[in-house]
Amino acid sequence: MYMDKLRTLWPHLDRENCIQVIDQRALPHQMIIRDLASSEDVYWAIRDMVVRGAPLIGATAAYGMFFAGLESQNSPKPLEKLVEISQRLAESRPTAVNLFWAINRQLEVYRREDQDWPTRCRLAREMADQIVEEDVETCRLIGAHGLKVFQEIQTQKGDRPIHILTHCNAGMLGCIEWGTATSPMYQAHQSGMDIHVWVDETRPRNQGANLTAWELGRAGVPHTIIVDNAGGHLMQHGQVDLVIVGTDRTTRTGDVANKIGTYLKALAAFDNQVPFYVALPSTTIDWSLRDGVREIPIEERDPKEVHSIRGWDGEKIQEVRISPESSRAANFGFDVTPARLVSALITERGTCPASEAGLLELFPEKQEGIQI
Amino acid sequence: MYMDKLRTLWPHLDRENCIQVIDQRALPHQMIIRDLASSEDVYWAIRDMVVRGAPLIGATAAYGMFFAGLESQNSPKPLEKLVEISQRLAESRPTAVNLFWAINRQLEVYRREDQDWPTRCRLAREMADQIVEEDVETCRLIGAHGLKVFQEIQTQKGDRPIHILTHCNAGMLGCIEWGTATSPMYQAHQSGMDIHVWVDETRPRNQGANLTAWELGRAGVPHTIIVDNAGGHLMQHGQVDLVIVGTDRTTRTGDVANKIGTYLKALAAFDNQVPFYVALPSTTIDWSLRDGVREIPIEERDPKEVHSIRGWDGEKIQEVRISPESSRAANFGFDVTPARLVSALITERGTCPASEAGLLELFPEKQEGIQI
Repeated sequence: MYMDKLRTLWPHLDRENCIQVIDQRALPHQMIIRDLASSEDVYWAIRDMVVRGAPLIGATAAYGMFFAGLESQNSPKPLEKLVEISQRLAESRPTAVNLFWAINRQLEVYRREDQDWPTRCRLAREMADQIVEEDVETCRLIGAHGLKVFQEIQTQKGDRPIHILTHCNAGMLGCIEWGTATSPMYQAHQSGMDIHVWVDETRPRNQGANLTAWELGRAGVPHTIIVDNAGGHLMQHGQVDLVIVGTDRTTRTGDVANKIGTYLKALAAFDNQVPFYVALPSTTIDWSLRDGVREIPIEERDPKEVHSIRGWDGEKIQEVRISPESSRAANFGFDVTPARLVSALITERGTCPASEAGLLELFPEKQEGIQI
Repeated sequence: MYMDKLRTLWPHLDRENCIQVIDQRALPHQMIIRDLASSEDVYWAIRDMVVRGAPLIGATAAYGMFFAGLESQNSPKPLEKLVEISQRLAESRPTAVNLFWAINRQLEVYRREDQDWPTRCRLAREMADQIVEEDVETCRLIGAHGLKVFQEIQTQKGDRPIHILTHCNAGMLGCIEWGTATSPMYQAHQSGMDIHVWVDETRPRNQGANLTAWELGRAGVPHTIIVDNAGGHLMQHGQVDLVIVGTDRTTRTGDVANKIGTYLKALAAFDNQVPFYVALPSTTIDWSLRDGVREIPIEERDPKEVHSIRGWDGEKIQEVRISPESSRAANFGFDVTPARLVSALITERGTCPASEAGLLELFPEKQEGIQI
């Protein structure tokens, strides 16, 4: 394990049936660890964004379902009680696909009528542990494939640091360990490669400045925070050797939905012949979609995130208003980068062109007509 | 005059030899008017960015030179004393070209040995007033030419609002009245045209959210603040009919240096066939430059502007830290948009293609070989 074995979620060492998580709302200003020991704790942690990022939400919810099993134990109809709790858990972040996926995976465990309830609870605990380890392994593999890409660029560039630009937080903080776009950075740094990361602050929620900078700093990876406006200028002046970002949803044709602003960096990379990579676990590929710009719905979020910003006032975290009281704001969560601007996709199975043919080379079972 | 006759600088109604300015550091949260009645007041106002924007800095400095004349009146060697004060004024913002231009224009007045000192002071006052009126007229003309561009787009689009995207503050707040990129917006709104402006917040100093939104709001122009990341998404979805920005420096070939992030919007506009206009007084054209990306030096500013942000905490303006204490930041002030991405330049003499041929059509006196 990497980073002093730090993960975003781990079993409490001294307390049975309890996990601990980093309270990401306080980063980068404070490192607060929270105990989660009930389904209600998990509901709160997901709803209040103590934990965020699709894989981490899924893993946390899986433990929530384990706690829900224990809480249903003494009920006359434990399965009914469990389903009830699971419905509440599912409401904690209504658009988080990994949340429903984890809950359903655990519901299957609890429906195993060949086992008594305490055994099902134990199996649910094992399933939660397994979901965690699966994510770690997926991210590690993405990093290993990404590292090869970095090494090729290193060879081309010769004996000088590789400058990498990233947007948002596709980091370990959204997963369990390694992260997706950050995984090759950590593996490159560990292997002794000389890298430096330009971190887009990523307005409006500033996940770059708050989270990516924090986790890179903790791991000792050299990095510099820039405003989202700066990347094009850096690329024009040869200061970026590659861009790597994560994705929330990828079409079967290689279009990539990611945090708002990703498309602008892809355009600048294309205009300056800088390679643009997307790191993704294959679970984020939506094989039913072909045209990302037209088909992927873009979430409009609370304009408050644009009007106000949270920071450290010297004593505490304080929210301040940064726009006129009378002005409207609009807040789009994501944008879609067309496949034509993506140099390659880096998945746990390897690297491929951002195209249907490229993806099917790695995932032949997804050929149309093949039943899975 | 427009906007209830509001300007950014005006003579004090009840106090002789005194001007008033809007304290732009407090916008958009508070409207504070400052009296400037000495060269030292003017030095402070420019240095502390009470006033900002090239034309406004120039005009304010011109009044500073008028005050300096009065202050030198009783000196045994008034011209020497004046030159001394002018040197201090020139240090208030060492990179502001309009500052030196205004100071030098006033020094010429004070060197008129055919006049006595009180007369030279009076002429300096008239010169300051003239600099103000010249700026107003230049901006008004830019707006009139820009309005024609807007009208053509309105005709093409038919009976629905025109959506305009702008970056930073090329507004009246940087000038005296009208502004540059905002001038056609004000004239269009005044003429009854249905327009709506997407205002980029413009990190790191947030001149869009703080200043452009404030002045559009004050003038009743419908507008919506967006983060700098959002423009590409809006253009992909047909939500932007044109982009218009200002510029700090334009090459004779039509490359445009403007606030960092402008280049990214120009790329997105080009990728989505959205016209991209630059509004400029011809004084910002640097006729000696041909390759903007290679030749225009880009100011690196204090990283503190990236690490921290100022906003309203409910009671006062408060600065908060928004990045980890241990992370570095870089802060580039401008980027260069190549002429190939610019649909047209809008100047006080008219609109032209962003090219040497285009500019020379409007400014034939700048043909090489012609002495001016």
